[in-house]
Amino acid sequence: MSSVFGILFRVATFGESHGRAVGCVVDGCPPRLPLSEADIQAQLDRRRPGQSALTTPRGEADRVTILSGVQDGVTLGTPIALLVENRDARPGDYASLADIPRPSHADFTYAAKYGLRARSGGGRASARETIGRVAAGAIAEKWMRLRFGVEIIAWVSAVGEREAPDRREQPPMRAEVDRYDTRAPDAESDAAFRAEIEAVLAARDSVGGVITCVCRGAPAGWGEPVFGKLEAELARAMLSIPAVKGFEIGSGFAGAHMRGSAHNDPFVRKEGRLGTATNRSGGIQGGISNGEDICFRVAFKPPATIGQPQKTANFNGEPVVLEAKGRHDPCVVPRAVPIVESMAALVLADAALQQLAREAAGGDARRV
Amino acid sequence: MSSVFGILFRVATFGESHGRAVGCVVDGCPPRLPLSEADIQAQLDRRRPGQSALTTPRGEADRVTILSGVQDGVTLGTPIALLVENRDARPGDYASLADIPRPSHADFTYAAKYGLRARSGGGRASARETIGRVAAGAIAEKWMRLRFGVEIIAWVSAVGEREAPDRREQPPMRAEVDRYDTRAPDAESDAAFRAEIEAVLAARDSVGGVITCVCRGAPAGWGEPVFGKLEAELARAMLSIPAVKGFEIGSGFAGAHMRGSAHNDPFVRKEGRLGTATNRSGGIQGGISNGEDICFRVAFKPPATIGQPQKTANFNGEPVVLEAKGRHDPCVVPRAVPIVESMAALVLADAALQQLAREAAGGDARRV
Amino acid sequence: MSSVFGILFRVATFGESHGRAVGCVVDGCPPRLPLSEADIQAQLDRRRPGQSALTTPRGEADRVTILSGVQDGVTLGTPIALLVENRDARPGDYASLADIPRPSHADFTYAAKYGLRARSGGGRASARETIGRVAAGAIAEKWMRLRFGVEIIAWVSAVGEREAPDRREQPPMRAEVDRYDTRAPDAESDAAFRAEIEAVLAARDSVGGVITCVCRGAPAGWGEPVFGKLEAELARAMLSIPAVKGFEIGSGFAGAHMRGSAHNDPFVRKEGRLGTATNRSGGIQGGISNGEDICFRVAFKPPATIGQPQKTANFNGEPVVLEAKGRHDPCVVPRAVPIVESMAALVLADAALQQLAREAAGGDARRV
Amino acid sequence: MSSVFGILFRVATFGESHGRAVGCVVDGCPPRLPLSEADIQAQLDRRRPGQSALTTPRGEADRVTILSGVQDGVTLGTPIALLVENRDARPGDYASLADIPRPSHADFTYAAKYGLRARSGGGRASARETIGRVAAGAIAEKWMRLRFGVEIIAWVSAVGEREAPDRREQPPMRAEVDRYDTRAPDAESDAAFRAEIEAVLAARDSVGGVITCVCRGAPAGWGEPVFGKLEAELARAMLSIPAVKGFEIGSGFAGAHMRGSAHNDPFVRKEGRLGTATNRSGGIQGGISNGEDICFRVAFKPPATIGQPQKTANFNGEPVVLEAKGRHDPCVVPRAVPIVESMAALVLADAALQQLAREAAGGDARRV
Repeated sequence: MSSVFGILFRVATFGESHGRAVGCVVDGCPPRLPLSEADIQAQLDRRRPGQSALTTPRGEADRVTILSGVQDGVTLGTPIALLVENRDARPGDYASLADIPRPSHADFTYAAKYGLRARSGGGRASARETIGRVAAGAIAEKWMRLRFGVEIIAWVSAVGEREAPDRREQPPMRAEVDRYDTRAPDAESDAAFRAEIEAVLAARDSVGGVITCVCRGAPAGWGEPVFGKLEAELARAMLSIPAVKGFEIGSGFAGAHMRGSAHNDPFVRKEGRLGTATNRSGGIQGGISNGEDICFRVAFKPPATIGQPQKTANFNGEPVVLEAKGRHDPCVVPRAVPIVESMAALVLADAALQQLAREAAGGDARRV
Repeated sequence: MSSVFGILFRVATFGESHGRAVGCVVDGCPPRLPLSEADIQAQLDRRRPGQSALTTPRGEADRVTILSGVQDGVTLGTPIALLVENRDARPGDYASLADIPRPSHADFTYAAKYGLRARSGGGRASARETIGRVAAGAIAEKWMRLRFGVEIIAWVSAVGEREAPDRREQPPMRAEVDRYDTRAPDAESDAAFRAEIEAVLAARDSVGGVITCVCRGAPAGWGEPVFGKLEAELARAMLSIPAVKGFEIGSGFAGAHMRGSAHNDPFVRKEGRLGTATNRSGGIQGGISNGEDICFRVAFKPPATIGQPQKTANFNGEPVVLEAKGRHDPCVVPRAVPIVESMAALVLADAALQQLAREAAGGDARRV
Repeated sequence: MSSVFGILFRVATFGESHGRAVGCVVDGCPPRLPLSEADIQAQLDRRRPGQSALTTPRGEADRVTILSGVQDGVTLGTPIALLVENRDARPGDYASLADIPRPSHADFTYAAKYGLRARSGGGRASARETIGRVAAGAIAEKWMRLRFGVEIIAWVSAVGEREAPDRREQPPMRAEVDRYDTRAPDAESDAAFRAEIEAVLAARDSVGGVITCVCRGAPAGWGEPVFGKLEAELARAMLSIPAVKGFEIGSGFAGAHMRGSAHNDPFVRKEGRLGTATNRSGGIQGGISNGEDICFRVAFKPPATIGQPQKTANFNGEPVVLEAKGRHDPCVVPRAVPIVESMAALVLADAALQQLAREAAGGDARRV
Repeated sequence: MSSVFGILFRVATFGESHGRAVGCVVDGCPPRLPLSEADIQAQLDRRRPGQSALTTPRGEADRVTILSGVQDGVTLGTPIALLVENRDARPGDYASLADIPRPSHADFTYAAKYGLRARSGGGRASARETIGRVAAGAIAEKWMRLRFGVEIIAWVSAVGEREAPDRREQPPMRAEVDRYDTRAPDAESDAAFRAEIEAVLAARDSVGGVITCVCRGAPAGWGEPVFGKLEAELARAMLSIPAVKGFEIGSGFAGAHMRGSAHNDPFVRKEGRLGTATNRSGGIQGGISNGEDICFRVAFKPPATIGQPQKTANFNGEPVVLEAKGRHDPCVVPRAVPIVESMAALVLADAALQQLAREAAGGDARRV
């Protein structure tokens, strides 16, 4: 019962992998924002399948249509409905799976939860579900760029055991990231990642990876203590993406091994504001943005669907060997880059609107 | 604006570190649950300061009072208000901090957000805020234990660079964990952790750590795709705890480095149900519990407040050296164990109630 | 920011009167419910324009398409997206209105709120917005009919100064109501209502009316004290319908003039349950259904758009005479009958699911 | 599960009639608002029992304590917990009721919903529950008065069959209303209302009444279409008050009998803004405030508890004669005046904050 995300900037997504269409309704987008389908299509194109030999061959153009909420090129402030039709659905590919829950996929848990077996393709537990997120996130991102100058950049920082250099302090540009099919931050990492993905393709296997994301330009003050802390909302947003297994803000798990004297970020004067000399906090302190770059990392497991035969059990508990057909990505992280950016945009836009309300509320007493 | 957590099992917390009282209101607890203050006090005692030489010397008994929602020893189904008075508040200790935001603490961001500087102790950005969570979580935990036999056990699995053996497959009992001031899973780890904490105490420093949590007995079917995935709600809950920097479900970041053939959890028949031979999924697939143990890890940074002098800047951006007084923990993880358990309990209870509604809703068609 | 309604049974609607399409996303519908487009179309047909000479001549077939959430004729438990295209939009009709806010319409307030003037037809402040509600309500209604035997029947009980006899104790059947274009409860009232509507049509005027609604078969126990009282949610749902100015549960305003000794509903034994001899409570006591029929009345003002010239002011405050074109209903209540039923269904389904969760939660102590 | 009200300005209430205490937690109050217990006590004093011979003799001072969220006389922006102890609870008075559900009270429905019989006094279905609302509303009201100059005034406009003159266009001052124990708008109405209440007291009976409320100074633009329309939120807020059976905005039910030509409010230029010559809209069009006074009426039934013997049935369905003891009001409307004002304040403050966020969001395109 929770395909709705956000409080003031809110999105409701819908659509199964092999149904008629996927999409979303965005409620609470500020009015008078210039918006066209092209603004949204750009991020969808970065997410869509078939971009390179490294991704699933499912052929979907993923053209978005705006059904409501926009008139004469600007948002009305009313709900924006976005629709993307499924054109290359092949539920038949999955027919053989009806009796065998794919290991580490959601077939078994969906059956347990809903009491039925959705034919094929995982229903909502499919990367196609993320189209609505990416479309909505593109709108949130545009608003924040125009209103605050916020920039959100994600890239692939690891594929399997190959890791790119830490670029959190000097993040690549989005154009740079898009130069590489793997969405690596540099040519050398791209080559390493590509080699890894080609190796798993050859082995009819799959591989996991890590995405790093940096959000620049958010002012100090975003995030709602105590349960709506900015890092809490980001963590929830990221862990809601299919295949995500971990989230770190700033120093993350490495920070757990450090001492306070080495971990604390001392304050220093920066242009026109108080900043910090280091950023192990990842741009957030006490759940509230501090004006530094918001930096986090997201771990993705290897896709569950692999071409190799797997020993497992069917729904009746009988041992079987599963040989999956269907089309899938050997590694999701290249295409997940715009998904991470979009979910970050949705979280930040919602936090921004809540803080704008507070700032405009003007308690009587003098602001410090 | 978000001190409220949960949808059906909902808690609103309140209270500053140095105000009159802290507490919470629990709304949506099932009626007719046997409940007394002693049920709640037990977890509060595990959280309270001054338990050992390894924690803050602030002397608080943290006695809880039930103000409403319980009559004749059972819950009424109405809101349960819980109150804990602050008795050893010493806001004066923090007077010298008025002009200097503590590095990596929330002084600066609270001022940026709310436009004022809360005297002392960080207001809501204090470990005392977590009393309301622990009290509410104790109720959620009791309900799930009686209704489903769910057991939630957390322990300290790392302090600084010292790590305990991986006990996720054979978690310790809560009584075992409580045997050690450090809340280690075994005597050897306790000794290592204790040495580390004593070292940072001597150095007037602080140190981070990791807590591992296992929830047993949750049936398959809990968690609400797509934004309310069980791991997403757990991640949000954990990242909302002060000082948390990272969250991993199942294989976590290690899983990102693996191949699918090695990572997938094959299905096998278990007593009366379909289970998995391994548990790299951490008990959750597609956002829904699969009946295996729900396992996750939470990274805590070192406490920001340290006794050593720190070079930093005051609110005006002028360089200063800060020497903190006030009372603080050298390492929060021992006392954070019940906080992690309680937040997990709140997430699971809410997911359980939502799934109970769905199961009782009985669509007409035959359940698979 | 609030085109989303409900907690467990939740609907997000979208669409402007003169945009491309209108529709909704239903989240939280129980899985395995048999559902086809025909189930939904039936209620849409009762709402659509052009049903008779008494309604707006706007020609819309209002054919609904299910985009997601249903497979092989049953619901999946995932979001159900429903789409209805606008085919007879004529924004040009309203061009002359650009500078003149229509009296008692939402042109002025939408401009004040969103900072722009939506071309034509009122955007979201249009009866077309209610298509999403009716479509969603049809699903809620079907579920409750199958699961609980709940029946929801609304009819027109007043048009202008003409009032039908009070039928709350013996409500008409839906088929009976549909026999009359006016949706009166009987032939005599139909004739009176028809005369009134024809009179205002002739006078290029409009007229208000009252709808009475009875929900039968809801068991005792639905409704969530204290802010989610069943009558509170019904009141909110009804007042959210365009043109509604009043709501009464049970005795309503008449009850305010009575004494307790005459107003109280004494308890009596009914078949297998405790019931009340009278029903001035309207089926709800303390915010919770008591097992009697839930009865309420809803007042609709006359439509703001009339053919007569009106003295008013333009956006600059200059006196003008407005002569509206555009197509509109002389009286909305006949077509509003399925809207009232649908909003009632959405409220009841949400309350039902919340109570199902509570009942399944099973506190340990014996139920009285 | 819904003792929480509001989105940005949010209150969670707690407390049973005969428990230890009642109160609330206010989350989302703007920071830096000057606030003391005296600000809140003033409205509580207007609500408390025992103010005159016309109200229940239960003796409660209802002193409020602020537990959190306020420091040095200003709000911190963090949750404000407010506590009022119950001192004169006498659950014993209700012992005889254990087996007999009071007619038109909530005894039966609470038992049906929660599966237990709360001892005495109705638990949450008691006027005492409203203390938390009034306390929270006093804060909302103060903020809106300082920030926008909003004034909220309610008065008793009918008791039984006695009606006061319509004062919506020239509302009395609050001080004027408080001059009369009945909270009538003038001396003549007070005398009539007093006579009516004294008559029912003498007859050991009770009587209903109507409260009219006017909110002045709200700018155009508040209210969230389509489900969060301002009149919808007001209706929900009012119907959530114990004993309320009806709600009307502006022309209300009378408007249902009118023609559009007579009902429409023509626009006219007012000081510095566009206004309407009449106000049958009640200050709201299309769910959004239009800058005129927001006017509504609320119908209260006669209190269910009366001194006269009543023929009814016990929980087993056996006929009994009930003679209630316990203390109760013969007519709730005098004391309900501050409750209506407070709920209106909570609705408006929440709408105001949401609109402030939108206005500060600044779409790029020029505002009309």
